Amino acid sequence: MSADEPGKIIPPRTLKGFRDLLPAAAIARERLIASAIGVYRLYGFSPIETPALEYTEILSGKGGDETDKQMYRFIDHGGRDIALRFDLTVPLARFVAQHSGVIGAPFKRYHVGSVWRGESPQRGRYREFLQCDFDTIGTESVMADIETALVIADVFAAVGVEDFTVRVNNRKVLSGLLERIGMEDNAGPVLRALDKLPKIGHDAVADQLQREAGADSAQVDRILALAATGEGTDIDALGDVVAGSVVGEEGAAELRALLDGVRTAEAPGAIVLDPSIARGLDYYTGVVFETFLDELPGIGSVMSGGRYDDLASVYTKQRLPGVGASLGVDRLLTALEELDSDERPATWALVLVTQFDGAGSLDALRVASELRRAGIGAEIYPDVRKLGPQLKYADRKGHRIAVIAGPEERARGEVQLKVLATGEAVVTPRSDLVMGVQRLLA
Amino acid sequence: MSADEPGKIIPPRTLKGFRDLLPAAAIARERLIASAIGVYRLYGFSPIETPALEYTEILSGKGGDETDKQMYRFIDHGGRDIALRFDLTVPLARFVAQHSGVIGAPFKRYHVGSVWRGESPQRGRYREFLQCDFDTIGTESVMADIETALVIADVFAAVGVEDFTVRVNNRKVLSGLLERIGMEDNAGPVLRALDKLPKIGHDAVADQLQREAGADSAQVDRILALAATGEGTDIDALGDVVAGSVVGEEGAAELRALLDGVRTAEAPGAIVLDPSIARGLDYYTGVVFETFLDELPGIGSVMSGGRYDDLASVYTKQRLPGVGASLGVDRLLTALEELDSDERPATWALVLVTQFDGAGSLDALRVASELRRAGIGAEIYPDVRKLGPQLKYADRKGHRIAVIAGPEERARGEVQLKVLATGEAVVTPRSDLVMGVQRLLA
Repeated sequence: MSADEPGKIIPPRTLKGFRDLLPAAAIARERLIASAIGVYRLYGFSPIETPALEYTEILSGKGGDETDKQMYRFIDHGGRDIALRFDLTVPLARFVAQHSGVIGAPFKRYHVGSVWRGESPQRGRYREFLQCDFDTIGTESVMADIETALVIADVFAAVGVEDFTVRVNNRKVLSGLLERIGMEDNAGPVLRALDKLPKIGHDAVADQLQREAGADSAQVDRILALAATGEGTDIDALGDVVAGSVVGEEGAAELRALLDGVRTAEAPGAIVLDPSIARGLDYYTGVVFETFLDELPGIGSVMSGGRYDDLASVYTKQRLPGVGASLGVDRLLTALEELDSDERPATWALVLVTQFDGAGSLDALRVASELRRAGIGAEIYPDVRKLGPQLKYADRKGHRIAVIAGPEERARGEVQLKVLATGEAVVTPRSDLVMGVQRLLA
Repeated sequence: MSADEPGKIIPPRTLKGFRDLLPAAAIARERLIASAIGVYRLYGFSPIETPALEYTEILSGKGGDETDKQMYRFIDHGGRDIALRFDLTVPLARFVAQHSGVIGAPFKRYHVGSVWRGESPQRGRYREFLQCDFDTIGTESVMADIETALVIADVFAAVGVEDFTVRVNNRKVLSGLLERIGMEDNAGPVLRALDKLPKIGHDAVADQLQREAGADSAQVDRILALAATGEGTDIDALGDVVAGSVVGEEGAAELRALLDGVRTAEAPGAIVLDPSIARGLDYYTGVVFETFLDELPGIGSVMSGGRYDDLASVYTKQRLPGVGASLGVDRLLTALEELDSDERPATWALVLVTQFDGAGSLDALRVASELRRAGIGAEIYPDVRKLGPQLKYADRKGHRIAVIAGPEERARGEVQLKVLATGEAVVTPRSDLVMGVQRLLA
């Protein structure tokens, strides 16, 4: 590798709004993703991959003006107008339209991938971030809605979070109300106003409903009364709100089936009706989900989604309804770090095999190989050095046991196993190495 | 989601040279990566992440003119000259220089990530592809070289490939020979010529050595005689070649220690000396590795690497020697598909729970929940339909068992378990569901 001008040092740095993940953070992310994917797989979701780059035409106009402006867009070597994807939903829409003949229906996919948005960097927000989505395409069955809620609940259980609440609503309930109060043509502005309720409060939303959705004060009262029922509303309470509206009654029935389903499956955590959940995005048409950590409500929803009934209509005339949700990987990681202050290891390997005399290096290889064959991660300190710095290295990286086999131990056919957290040292016959380590790790 | 012009259909397509992965291919890739990472972790390598986008200044001039030309490079919203990474090695160099104060030494990382090169698309080559690298930075110990070879061998064993050969060489051996024949200043052109030996043959390499490295015919003979010893050369045969050259003897000693080490650790497969292995890249300074599948030698090396002693010198004055290798994920996947013609499943879930009467949907949820709690992947067919299409769906996706519980089975407290590959059906008491499925899967 050579610089343009020999000897010139290029300052090593990441782009503004971007970051590296060092091992401890990358391991935490790997664990979280593995937990989420593990649940997705248990429910029959399969992975897909799509390119990071797409024709700009495929991406633009799909996420609104804001995302269009934030897109990393450029002209490639072949003169094509291309851009980096800003979410995994638009590529999914393109994918199902393109491959509908092959993939069949229902099509259940998950997708873990980076997306890019040139937003103004804020604390905890980056211009490249990871999404971890799952969706069921090609069915309007409430079963798919139920399973979406179950997956969300199981993901949090798998991650080790016990106190979480999945708040559920259905767009059709609001549509039913709007129909009854003669505002069915203004659903979009109403939704956008309601979505701000937790942030800007009752009065500001009332104001916005009047200004942007053209509601009069009676209409505002009806809309805000529905939202005010809040988390844990009894499903029976919706009967009055939607009575006489076909779409509204359909929404209430779907919610009832969903709540029955998650009760039957004995889902962990709390899955409750909350008529105030709106989700800002226009494309939802049925059930919507948001998930909050009970101990950290302030960070907002960490897993959200819903049903959309014309995902791919821009790319195909085929109707492709779907339902799904997206895990906010980085937001949940931040939360987990706040909830659990334990030191995070910077290694997957539990054991460090030390080396402090050159004659022991083949033996170190034998020790490590035996451990690895037993499925125990073992790192060999590569250089012959004093023991002190090697143990310090193990401490810092988060190894749990150091194996010490100097000339004396080797002569006696023994190894010393040192538990790094406590300093406790156990001397074991060399032939019992694996068992001895397993015992200390248990 | 709305198009720019309502009703206008945008043809769904990927960019030239890019592709989607459908579930069966994505699952095969997930399996391969999990196997490789599993081995990396066992040896104490930890994950890192770096951004897909870097300052162009960081990337350019590091991979040669060819990669500079192929870079996806553009100006971002802030007027910055930026580009997509074309490999994971240059970002690693930037990373270790930037974080050297925090990460310590030795630093052992793995990194799985996409890279982008605007190459002319060829069969089996794409403009976005996945790399899966591991490296040990901050040590010159032969132990790190030995472990690199062991990791490579264990990756192939983990993937289920038994017949593979890791060919090992050391740049210093060639340097020793060049020193002895007075060509030590022409190592670069000699390496590039030798690297082409398998492709263009003896005579063309001889010609290139004369034209581009300025070798006379006696020098050509000495260089080609070393390479001709080929795969499986005895380490003792190198003694004569390098005798009297300090660097050459060092290279031979390192190779001897490496071969001793891998024998001691009882590495799977064959790890053999091959003095013809050159690796085209200039930056290798010590051991080099290539790995070939014995049954498919024609596809070339599927995992390659080596030692480089000034990885990050462009970014820092600190000396950061390293050794590592990179798995050719997509090349190996293609090979595995050729070696094993079994149908590849398009799902991780082994069971499909059918639904053919609406009254059974809560029961289907109970069945699926029990299986999932036992760790068995179970997908519920979301719609109420005739059994035929549901079984066809399961067949096509690769589920192994269909659970059938119609009104009659439910009335009798039974379920029917159908093995999709054979059509065999077993009727089991509902209470023995999990055990019955486990028995059929075993």
